Amino acid sequence: MSKPFPSDLEIAQAAPMQPITEIAASTGISEERLEPYGKYVAKVLLDETTTAENALKKGSKYIVVTAVTPTPLGEGKTATSVSLAQGMAHIGKKATLTLREPALGPVFGVKGGASGGGYSQIVPMEKLNLHLTGDFHAITSAHNLLSAMIDNHLHHGNKLNIDVRNISWRRVMDMNDRSLRNIIVGLGERMDGVPRETGFDITPASEVMVIVSLASSFTDLRERLARIVIGYTMDGGPITAQNLRADGAMAALLQDAFNPNLLQTLEHTPALIHAGPFGNIATGNSSVVADYVGLEHSDYVITEAGFGADMGAERFFNVKCRTSGLKPNAAVLVVTVRSLKSHSGLYKIVPGKPLPERMLQESPADVKAGAANLVKHIEIVRSFGVQPVVAINAFPSDFDSEHEAIRMIAEEAGARVAIHRGVAEGGAGVTELAEAVVAACDDVSDLVYTYEDSDSLSTKIEKVAKRVYGADGIEVAPAAAQQLAKFEELGFGHLPVVIAKTHLSISSDASLKGAPTGWTLPVREVRLAAGAGYVYAICGTMRTMPGLGASPSAERIGFDEDGQLVGLF
Amino acid sequence: MSKPFPSDLEIAQAAPMQPITEIAASTGISEERLEPYGKYVAKVLLDETTTAENALKKGSKYIVVTAVTPTPLGEGKTATSVSLAQGMAHIGKKATLTLREPALGPVFGVKGGASGGGYSQIVPMEKLNLHLTGDFHAITSAHNLLSAMIDNHLHHGNKLNIDVRNISWRRVMDMNDRSLRNIIVGLGERMDGVPRETGFDITPASEVMVIVSLASSFTDLRERLARIVIGYTMDGGPITAQNLRADGAMAALLQDAFNPNLLQTLEHTPALIHAGPFGNIATGNSSVVADYVGLEHSDYVITEAGFGADMGAERFFNVKCRTSGLKPNAAVLVVTVRSLKSHSGLYKIVPGKPLPERMLQESPADVKAGAANLVKHIEIVRSFGVQPVVAINAFPSDFDSEHEAIRMIAEEAGARVAIHRGVAEGGAGVTELAEAVVAACDDVSDLVYTYEDSDSLSTKIEKVAKRVYGADGIEVAPAAAQQLAKFEELGFGHLPVVIAKTHLSISSDASLKGAPTGWTLPVREVRLAAGAGYVYAICGTMRTMPGLGASPSAERIGFDEDGQLVGLF
Repeated sequence: MSKPFPSDLEIAQAAPMQPITEIAASTGISEERLEPYGKYVAKVLLDETTTAENALKKGSKYIVVTAVTPTPLGEGKTATSVSLAQGMAHIGKKATLTLREPALGPVFGVKGGASGGGYSQIVPMEKLNLHLTGDFHAITSAHNLLSAMIDNHLHHGNKLNIDVRNISWRRVMDMNDRSLRNIIVGLGERMDGVPRETGFDITPASEVMVIVSLASSFTDLRERLARIVIGYTMDGGPITAQNLRADGAMAALLQDAFNPNLLQTLEHTPALIHAGPFGNIATGNSSVVADYVGLEHSDYVITEAGFGADMGAERFFNVKCRTSGLKPNAAVLVVTVRSLKSHSGLYKIVPGKPLPERMLQESPADVKAGAANLVKHIEIVRSFGVQPVVAINAFPSDFDSEHEAIRMIAEEAGARVAIHRGVAEGGAGVTELAEAVVAACDDVSDLVYTYEDSDSLSTKIEKVAKRVYGADGIEVAPAAAQQLAKFEELGFGHLPVVIAKTHLSISSDASLKGAPTGWTLPVREVRLAAGAGYVYAICGTMRTMPGLGASPSAERIGFDEDGQLVGLF
Repeated sequence: MSKPFPSDLEIAQAAPMQPITEIAASTGISEERLEPYGKYVAKVLLDETTTAENALKKGSKYIVVTAVTPTPLGEGKTATSVSLAQGMAHIGKKATLTLREPALGPVFGVKGGASGGGYSQIVPMEKLNLHLTGDFHAITSAHNLLSAMIDNHLHHGNKLNIDVRNISWRRVMDMNDRSLRNIIVGLGERMDGVPRETGFDITPASEVMVIVSLASSFTDLRERLARIVIGYTMDGGPITAQNLRADGAMAALLQDAFNPNLLQTLEHTPALIHAGPFGNIATGNSSVVADYVGLEHSDYVITEAGFGADMGAERFFNVKCRTSGLKPNAAVLVVTVRSLKSHSGLYKIVPGKPLPERMLQESPADVKAGAANLVKHIEIVRSFGVQPVVAINAFPSDFDSEHEAIRMIAEEAGARVAIHRGVAEGGAGVTELAEAVVAACDDVSDLVYTYEDSDSLSTKIEKVAKRVYGADGIEVAPAAAQQLAKFEELGFGHLPVVIAKTHLSISSDASLKGAPTGWTLPVREVRLAAGAGYVYAICGTMRTMPGLGASPSAERIGFDEDGQLVGLF
């Protein structure tokens, strides 16, 4: 931002919050269902009324916020979600946000902050970004208890005949720690376990995280935990968490974590923050149960899906909605002037370096040169039968002519479009977008899945590749084809699929901008997430444990002379 | 117990709890200082009034609960602490408990439960034993952030010239996971870090845990974190957390965890549950700040030290009280009929097997045969200038003649003595003990340390060995002598010492019962905990990461058909 503007942390720290009991009361969540964690955070306790039926009864509108293909500049998708929820109040509508919980690890890496920005933030931001109510820690514990029980089983004689070379269940930690990616455990003496190679992923990559996000009830959660496949016997049979008798204790560890967290925006809009699976190898969406609670108590529920519409939104539609039984009424596509300029391919942007001079100059032509990406994402949303609304996240450095260029692109593609200034102005700057979304919700939407349950796994992958990404087809490596056949044989053929590819292009090649055509999706490997309930295809190098940089933000986080927390953002 | 008696979990689940706000109000903790975590748990927020001066101002009495040398049967030390606190109310005295937080790992091993027993328990017990307010998770994160920053530093060129073969800082996890004891990290490709051997300890073994327990203020905590020595340069110089610029971010992770947790006993006595360092290599005592809060708000503060008086109580006096500036008024020595029978050496007790038939029969003679251990522990307490009170934790299977035998042993040794039936009867069965403790507190106590700050490190170890344990002397291995010399040279000679030896004997040989004489303490190795503020001498094999058994309790924890948590205890 070129104008003098307070930092996100300064705005958040200066904001007067309402007691969370008042936020809950304002949205009709009863006090008995509220478990406060301090004055400004609470757990909403689920009960037998938390169901898809009750969520649907009220006829509330369900809106997913997605975006064009991410650029290094950031599109402000969370900021737009928060902006929109705040904007709803300014046009007299009652909205609730449902968002993912941020992971702890990245806070100490480059920068944390899944809290939005400027005057459209979730607060208290320090709590949000540091531990919150401990859900990720509970998920880490549940995951690693299973890991410990696997190695303990090997140590005590391996009665289940587990093939030590075929254990896919690793350990997790909510930390950017590259040294744990590949490790050998069980060294030392005989009493120190069985040596084998394994590793750690970051907690958002845990299948337990996806289970918390997708389970529709605590009973469902327990059943999903039991179904987790951790590896195979020497005869090739699957070994489950239930076989290891780990599922009950894992569920015990997750009792509190399964209840959504209630926070607020700077303008006191209720925000249910719950679960945070990775957007690359996992579903990248917040929890089903938080959406149930939101829909039961609000007229509009605004949720956010990870990365671009090809990634998080595709999984939102094909996996999350299929599981939850919910049907979205509209999809908001976040775009910025800079992101379309970036997708034009006319600039070379290097993270951490100043922007190219040309990019800062008024140029609707350069914006139009990046149109293909936006148009493709509009088409993707429409392929699901859902109404798209293009949200232009305005920056102070933008020019009106550039906004106008985006408006024309969107309208030509038949989408509603609105500019919002939620970061600079809060909800008051988002009424146009709020009106557009309300109008879209009043139109007919009828969710269409990309594939049927009964399609074969490879057909499912192929349909996503062709119908969503616009690929010519898929190329399944021989080993992957064998795995697919095995999963079908083991009875997992009915599951939906998650395609783990780069998020930096609609294609599987991160360097291809815009809306690539004439390419084939390479399926290198397929893996099973039997508990979460999908098969995922690895189509590229997936990083499941980040590292820290040469000068990580952890070095700057601390306390000033007055004892005030600094450096977090 | 031979009588039909409900299980601890059944008693705890049936108990009506008071809202934690009422518990706080009853002890004068203001609502502004209270941060509720649900209805029955709260954090007590520390502020600038939380100091030794304010803790001492009121003249409250400070009581430490310790025990004879632990036996496989369990002495009920926590149950006695809870009993005594409850008993105080029955004689019209206002008491607060300060106890350690239980670790999560052991809950899934043999059995959890640092919650007391029967009608003398801390509630809510499920919260207490599963996550509580997440302090241990925060400590785990802070510890592992430093670990990640060490490996990240090596990866990015090792500008500090750290000797990779001389890094003592490991990682921690709150899990019984033996396979993580010895691991190789940093395998894979060039971008996956620098390969080296290291390992995981369980979280209670973390130096960060000790820092949380010993720090007298948040400023002190930050300074201690900064002083942590993680290893040495190639030139032998110490590398600190501050050198790695990790201390600020570690402190940010510990902001909430540094505030004590308020819970209640079954009879609504306030219980401050905070920190839980290991009793073998660490201090084995709950936090200094919780004691400050307790003393400020109560007439009697009852705290508990790990293992026997030679272990936790010695460290309570020589390390914790030296750090906190507090002086105890009395020490309660918990003993049972069975523990003295066990110390007689007349029985062979195998954990998990039924007790020997003879042990269940009335035999004051066998109790007297184990007297030496109790007498020695009375002497240990008295060596610190503190009034001992022997507390006989009565079991339904005991005989009066056996209680009488203990009474005679204690009185002959010049200690007060009282029987309590807190487990079976709650506080009503503890009035005799409560009266004895009040009387002891009215006597003169004047804490005498075993050694002076100015003594050399080896003199300190020798004084503890001779004056506390009753050893003939110490035998320092050449490598350990070199380490001691190095620590003195580096300016750590003024620190107190922790002697990491077996807790199953007053000597360093676990098989020696009673009060062994004619032995020498072997000092195999010495290590530095510069942040926590002590040097510790390894005198035996210390396990810092437990494992799970062949049939761990995790396999039995889960939910019944009504969705009720079962198998936890």
